[in-house]
Amino acid sequence: MIKIEDAGSGVSVLRMTQGENRFSPDFLDAFAAAIDEVEGTARAVVTTGEGKFYSNGLDLDWLSGNGEKFDWYLGRVHALYGRLLGLNLPTVAAVNGHAFAGGGMLALAHDFSVMRADRGWFCLPEIDLEIPFSPAMVALIQAKLPKETVHEAALTGRRYTGPESVEAGIAHHAVAEDEVLGKAVEIATGLAGKSGKTFGAIRRTIYRPALTALTGAAESAGA
Amino acid sequence: MIKIEDAGSGVSVLRMTQGENRFSPDFLDAFAAAIDEVEGTARAVVTTGEGKFYSNGLDLDWLSGNGEKFDWYLGRVHALYGRLLGLNLPTVAAVNGHAFAGGGMLALAHDFSVMRADRGWFCLPEIDLEIPFSPAMVALIQAKLPKETVHEAALTGRRYTGPESVEAGIAHHAVAEDEVLGKAVEIATGLAGKSGKTFGAIRRTIYRPALTALTGAAESAGA
Amino acid sequence: MIKIEDAGSGVSVLRMTQGENRFSPDFLDAFAAAIDEVEGTARAVVTTGEGKFYSNGLDLDWLSGNGEKFDWYLGRVHALYGRLLGLNLPTVAAVNGHAFAGGGMLALAHDFSVMRADRGWFCLPEIDLEIPFSPAMVALIQAKLPKETVHEAALTGRRYTGPESVEAGIAHHAVAEDEVLGKAVEIATGLAGKSGKTFGAIRRTIYRPALTALTGAAESAGA
Amino acid sequence: MIKIEDAGSGVSVLRMTQGENRFSPDFLDAFAAAIDEVEGTARAVVTTGEGKFYSNGLDLDWLSGNGEKFDWYLGRVHALYGRLLGLNLPTVAAVNGHAFAGGGMLALAHDFSVMRADRGWFCLPEIDLEIPFSPAMVALIQAKLPKETVHEAALTGRRYTGPESVEAGIAHHAVAEDEVLGKAVEIATGLAGKSGKTFGAIRRTIYRPALTALTGAAESAGA
Amino acid sequence: MIKIEDAGSGVSVLRMTQGENRFSPDFLDAFAAAIDEVEGTARAVVTTGEGKFYSNGLDLDWLSGNGEKFDWYLGRVHALYGRLLGLNLPTVAAVNGHAFAGGGMLALAHDFSVMRADRGWFCLPEIDLEIPFSPAMVALIQAKLPKETVHEAALTGRRYTGPESVEAGIAHHAVAEDEVLGKAVEIATGLAGKSGKTFGAIRRTIYRPALTALTGAAESAGA
Amino acid sequence: MIKIEDAGSGVSVLRMTQGENRFSPDFLDAFAAAIDEVEGTARAVVTTGEGKFYSNGLDLDWLSGNGEKFDWYLGRVHALYGRLLGLNLPTVAAVNGHAFAGGGMLALAHDFSVMRADRGWFCLPEIDLEIPFSPAMVALIQAKLPKETVHEAALTGRRYTGPESVEAGIAHHAVAEDEVLGKAVEIATGLAGKSGKTFGAIRRTIYRPALTALTGAAESAGA
Repeated sequence: MIKIEDAGSGVSVLRMTQGENRFSPDFLDAFAAAIDEVEGTARAVVTTGEGKFYSNGLDLDWLSGNGEKFDWYLGRVHALYGRLLGLNLPTVAAVNGHAFAGGGMLALAHDFSVMRADRGWFCLPEIDLEIPFSPAMVALIQAKLPKETVHEAALTGRRYTGPESVEAGIAHHAVAEDEVLGKAVEIATGLAGKSGKTFGAIRRTIYRPALTALTGAAESAGA
Repeated sequence: MIKIEDAGSGVSVLRMTQGENRFSPDFLDAFAAAIDEVEGTARAVVTTGEGKFYSNGLDLDWLSGNGEKFDWYLGRVHALYGRLLGLNLPTVAAVNGHAFAGGGMLALAHDFSVMRADRGWFCLPEIDLEIPFSPAMVALIQAKLPKETVHEAALTGRRYTGPESVEAGIAHHAVAEDEVLGKAVEIATGLAGKSGKTFGAIRRTIYRPALTALTGAAESAGA
Repeated sequence: MIKIEDAGSGVSVLRMTQGENRFSPDFLDAFAAAIDEVEGTARAVVTTGEGKFYSNGLDLDWLSGNGEKFDWYLGRVHALYGRLLGLNLPTVAAVNGHAFAGGGMLALAHDFSVMRADRGWFCLPEIDLEIPFSPAMVALIQAKLPKETVHEAALTGRRYTGPESVEAGIAHHAVAEDEVLGKAVEIATGLAGKSGKTFGAIRRTIYRPALTALTGAAESAGA
Repeated sequence: MIKIEDAGSGVSVLRMTQGENRFSPDFLDAFAAAIDEVEGTARAVVTTGEGKFYSNGLDLDWLSGNGEKFDWYLGRVHALYGRLLGLNLPTVAAVNGHAFAGGGMLALAHDFSVMRADRGWFCLPEIDLEIPFSPAMVALIQAKLPKETVHEAALTGRRYTGPESVEAGIAHHAVAEDEVLGKAVEIATGLAGKSGKTFGAIRRTIYRPALTALTGAAESAGA
Repeated sequence: MIKIEDAGSGVSVLRMTQGENRFSPDFLDAFAAAIDEVEGTARAVVTTGEGKFYSNGLDLDWLSGNGEKFDWYLGRVHALYGRLLGLNLPTVAAVNGHAFAGGGMLALAHDFSVMRADRGWFCLPEIDLEIPFSPAMVALIQAKLPKETVHEAALTGRRYTGPESVEAGIAHHAVAEDEVLGKAVEIATGLAGKSGKTFGAIRRTIYRPALTALTGAAESAGA
Repeated sequence: MIKIEDAGSGVSVLRMTQGENRFSPDFLDAFAAAIDEVEGTARAVVTTGEGKFYSNGLDLDWLSGNGEKFDWYLGRVHALYGRLLGLNLPTVAAVNGHAFAGGGMLALAHDFSVMRADRGWFCLPEIDLEIPFSPAMVALIQAKLPKETVHEAALTGRRYTGPESVEAGIAHHAVAEDEVLGKAVEIATGLAGKSGKTFGAIRRTIYRPALTALTGAAESAGA
């Protein structure tokens, strides 16, 4: 589900290949395994999807048949975000398409992100789905987005195009479709020379409250 | 499921009459409705059960058939604890029997508690059930119990008798079975002369962090 | 003091009609009563004033004759801000004129605000009045304004015109005088389709620290 | 109003000589001046009263004629507690008689306290006066008292005798009337050999949250 | 420096064999390696020393020759405490002798502790050495000790015998010299049947603030 | 090392005259003494350097020979930042040249800053020096910089020119070299009419968490 590609200069690309890349337990397992694999060898990581979607987040199909595991499942999603936020490696999201709900938060959990300029949205539709955010998810969103963007994104469910995302502080670059991955790899390559351990230590200090909230939420769910 | 009895002097007794008094959604509805009813009229509240049980907490039978609502359900339990912790009325738990897991936390959410001296335990068995506590539940437990008791109760799953509960700071009195309710009513009567509004304001200030955690957990679950 | 007008589509307008709309206890009572009234029926709320003023905040005349109630009075103002920040309804401030000191914070306690482009200022003059802010007021200001605006507004007492307020992140729109209310109603109408309960739950999660500070300050003052 | 006496070995005794030792602004000025005086010269400080009272706290007579200064006044009381909690000197309260409300908190702001065994009470009567505590006062009380004592003292207004205060963790010793000062001086003498700077640094680290709350409350009141 | 012994029932004993067991970098390496080794295999861990000392903490000799590494060194000590507090295994300290300063905090970082009844002290002598505690160390001490013991231990430097340690909430048992290890192993054996993962998750939730402070202090020192 | 100049209107200029103005203990003493001197007399303070450097921060030469004092030394640097953040005077940094690492944080600890437009950088190179920030330093940086700038400055070590610093929210103005001091004095003069006590109280309330972190770090290092 996750293909690992070597982009040179110590940069590994994790390509999510499941269409909408929704977070089924198998997908979460594969993602965690991919990070395990690159953690010891790469110096920077880029994640990307294929086609129209970066990730649409929670796997509602799976959930509809496994509702009794919802809490554990949500814990695993929190654990994924926390893993990225705590990693001893720079991370860049090459957001090739839609990044919705949990998939949008996945992008936010990276150090930098590049969006496609022409199509695809960042959107937190929870307000319209009538699903409140967990406190730990809000902690992640607030750690990464400007106050006014947190307010608008979470309370109005606005869909941001790539260029709007850059303006709103959601993404760092919006480029043509076929440059998304290249730009992300370029950023990752620029960071690959840093000490991963120091990078991780500084990032964890900056984002300590969000990291603590995500870890705590994951643990209390037994994930 | 909850019978409301007038104990005089402005003290209302909420008697839980469902055996183990597990928190089915109907039970939670009935409990909330009972509090609604006494909130405007009583000056102090006592809760109690019947027979062997005060309450055994979560309704595992209901959960096994409604797992997909687990998060919402847990939110409702958090909301119940938060409601008691924030009430503009003194509250006393007359713990007539077992107070296990969520039922133990229900007792802790009251201002004072009286246990039966001869039989019945307070127990947080989550460690042995291999279910971690939610952060908000830990906030409640830590708000009410001495540090060493939090440590022992949560990490060892020890069963405390009534007298042991008093010694450990879990309960305030341990008396003979037929004196449990009377003692609780006596305490409530002593508090019924206080201003409920001031009582609530002081309690909410003292327990602000736990109250905030419980309310937040309830809200993010849509409960 | 507060006229309630139906703007259609579930939007209620609360029009403050007392000139400078300073917060006398009667005004605070009327405001609270107006919110009580629309809480169950409206789907979004707009507040506005008349003529030159949106609100100038604390009622210094009343205070000069009732200084002994200052703490309780300030508690009531904190409670008003907390009420708006916690409401299960989207709120929009149609800032038709001056929004000074406590009146400026009133505007900030809304979800969105529209200012008049030609005249009228947002200003926190406390530094020049030599009155420090309460911690809870700072919590509200910091929850809603960008860091650099908090710094400048609170430490220099700068008066921001409507367009300057938009640039500084204080207001969302600055329009011609006769379009202020219309624009605010338009925003409210756009939000009226959301679930108020979910809207409130998300807003309370985002602004939990400010909400807790305001509520705590109100309660410890017996308000 | 405050007499400074040399008890030898670097111990200064601050004797409050105004009967009930209520906190009039003049009293607060005198207290602050006395601390200023001993801060550079003493190695430990003991405070005490005369006759039946240690201190009864707020000066209600003064307040009834100066209600408009209530907020500033309360700020000054918070500042007094904060001053003691932050001092680079060990402090011991020789509680010769009643320590009520604000006077009880004054005793709590010291490092150690000795009460009279036969007469005199520690009491926080705010619940019965229907006056909630400020958040900063609760922070002080919670910093110094065991959880169960905070609960009982603040919610029931119980009057604790000297021996009961020792049992409840409010005071460290309860001795005969004519030994109160001597015991306090003995404790202070034992601490006078410590480095005041280190003592203050450790105390401020332990009680940082309460100190921050008290300082913040004082400052926001312009005290 | 650390011998690993199998005590049966899944209990591993880590025996520190360097006399005073001061924390030289080599000692810290050995301790970390020993934990690495037992983490995957044991179900509970006991630590102990030999002869007169459990541990006397920081290695002042090493420090006097390597002062320029003080910050990194202190970070490593913080990391050690954090490691124990976060471990997915129950831990018991068999305190066979002196547990001073950093060595006392090492004992506190365990889940349970058994002290020798006849000789050996727990002592935090920092006040007399005129060395303030780091905020993270205070966080650990406050997480584990009752308020009044934190106050007395940190501000007076009192030496507590085994029985006094039990009374003050520092240790859980005080037994004859030759029963210290046996009692600790007995406790560990009783806990070895628990799920280590659940045990760790609950412990980390209870002690989240201290764990966060220790981890943060370690990371910012590059340890 | 620090020359105090009178710029009129109650504005004092503290001119750092040691080339790179690295923080040797003597420099820190001189800086503290200069603040002591102007604290009672000035109404606003401007700091500046000479030639190419504003300040390059820590004195690595001194440290290489005094490594054993590193913790105390770092505590003194934290104390310097805290002193500025807590001062009862408006402060303006006239950043005449490089502001690197600790020197950059010195500029951030002022209320306003003016940079040179043509040459000189603001830079936090810790990521490339492989030195994590202390939690208190991160608290200062986060208190003063927009989220996205904290992220970029701390994780990439980017060098910001004056104009880039203004755009990133690091500095308030970028002007020609010979206008830097004049612009800073102009800002200070505009603030010199404010009540210093109120200015300080509001600033301390806004930046309470950073101030508490800096003070705590300084104290626990015995500085």
